[in-house]
Amino acid sequence: MPDLAYVNGEIMPIEKAVVPIEDRGYQFGDGVYEFVASYEGRPFMLEEHLDRLERSMRELALDPVPRADIKKAVLDLFTLSGYPRAGLYIQIARGVAPRNHAITPGMTPQIIMTIRPVQEMPAEKREKGATAITVKDTRWGRCDIKTVQLLSNSLAKQKSLDAGCDDAIFVSGQGIVREGTSSNLFIVSGGRLTTHPLTDNILPGITRMVVLNLCKAADLVVEESFFGIEALLGADEVFLTGTVTELLPIVRIDDKSIGNGEVGPITRRLYDLLREQAMAGGPA
Amino acid sequence: MPDLAYVNGEIMPIEKAVVPIEDRGYQFGDGVYEFVASYEGRPFMLEEHLDRLERSMRELALDPVPRADIKKAVLDLFTLSGYPRAGLYIQIARGVAPRNHAITPGMTPQIIMTIRPVQEMPAEKREKGATAITVKDTRWGRCDIKTVQLLSNSLAKQKSLDAGCDDAIFVSGQGIVREGTSSNLFIVSGGRLTTHPLTDNILPGITRMVVLNLCKAADLVVEESFFGIEALLGADEVFLTGTVTELLPIVRIDDKSIGNGEVGPITRRLYDLLREQAMAGGPA
Repeated sequence: MPDLAYVNGEIMPIEKAVVPIEDRGYQFGDGVYEFVASYEGRPFMLEEHLDRLERSMRELALDPVPRADIKKAVLDLFTLSGYPRAGLYIQIARGVAPRNHAITPGMTPQIIMTIRPVQEMPAEKREKGATAITVKDTRWGRCDIKTVQLLSNSLAKQKSLDAGCDDAIFVSGQGIVREGTSSNLFIVSGGRLTTHPLTDNILPGITRMVVLNLCKAADLVVEESFFGIEALLGADEVFLTGTVTELLPIVRIDDKSIGNGEVGPITRRLYDLLREQAMAGGPA
Repeated sequence: MPDLAYVNGEIMPIEKAVVPIEDRGYQFGDGVYEFVASYEGRPFMLEEHLDRLERSMRELALDPVPRADIKKAVLDLFTLSGYPRAGLYIQIARGVAPRNHAITPGMTPQIIMTIRPVQEMPAEKREKGATAITVKDTRWGRCDIKTVQLLSNSLAKQKSLDAGCDDAIFVSGQGIVREGTSSNLFIVSGGRLTTHPLTDNILPGITRMVVLNLCKAADLVVEESFFGIEALLGADEVFLTGTVTELLPIVRIDDKSIGNGEVGPITRRLYDLLREQAMAGGPA
């Protein structure tokens, strides 16, 4: 099967999929999304992605859409695509109305999806580690809601590529290290892990949650607390987590080597545990 | 003529106007816009709107579009609509590509426009004044670029309506008063005006600029400087400026009367001067 799109109940080639120009997703960024990946044909952590999608919709007071309908469409697309390792994008926008900052009552949420093979991270990045720059966090104040307010994320990602690196790490005006452009961030120092606590300023990542649980099961100490750029650059290991990112070692940030500049043992171990769980279709 | 839309060179009814779901305007909020209004069939400050549109595109490194093409399309729509008082919305998104935070090279900017009669502010609000609430500014860090990263603006506007008011005024985490949800803000104290200086945190409003020039011509003292919520609530007069807003008195904020709770003389005078200039088709 080719790559596919879904628009409000209809399945079609992606090139044919369109939305009205007055969809509020287009004119206000008034929409939420999820990205779900499959391993060997099985979507990983689907219920958790649907939970977060529902939370995002509630936070923005979008009209609810039956979860069963969304889930059915998602599963149909995974099946129809036939890809063993597929990436499904789902976006739900508030609705269509003549442009107005005020929210017109009675709009119907617009649901679109696409499915394609996952663009895998090059094996070399997993083996030798990836590189990052730090950038000032100019995102809006509700990064905990997975909305399409993503221009800062996109510009930061592009900036990192232009600098010859792989990703950018957002650092707040007060010097707090937040996360990557589409991933959460962990540091390892003296065998202990630290990651940013769940606040309005970071995404409640599903892979982040999986990794926290893996740490617990593996008797690794993790603290959810704020840390600054010195702790980041001085860490023994740094890694990013995300649905496509999986668990990606970062070995150089702003031209400074992290630890000895090689992928560290805890990063390696957690990556193996994550892959194992993903291939098994979920937690044991 | 009915209301009209324009999509990449074609004119059609608004209901027929669509964009691909992988337009980056839809999935990343990666687009810029302008709203131009006409008085007696003549678009007001069109060159200034086109200047700002070009600046927005440059700031985001969108591929340039010939200004003459945009201007011709804008003027055609104003003519075709036949509305003496029309509001034209123009949005330019970066282009269409398979979803990726990184910017795919070689995309073609997507240009859409709509034209409709301007939704005039009720005369009562101009006569008796409007009301506002203050809200924390949760917008992204580049509000000087007129992008569709507008979810904070929309949610704040709706919150103000839900509270029985007309608009919301953004106040930074540090207590600096920024602007309205689609307008700039001026205060008058002891006969002197103050408005937020042009920084990354407010829109360089065209009506703001017109009003600054009107003040100069009328020998009114205006300072572009930061001020806090005490100065806002303690002002003799407060007004918002914008293309549709024109110059709107705010007489109550967060349940506190501004001045004596009536529209003040400087607000009234500047509104008359602005209308005069708009009806004359531009500055003398």
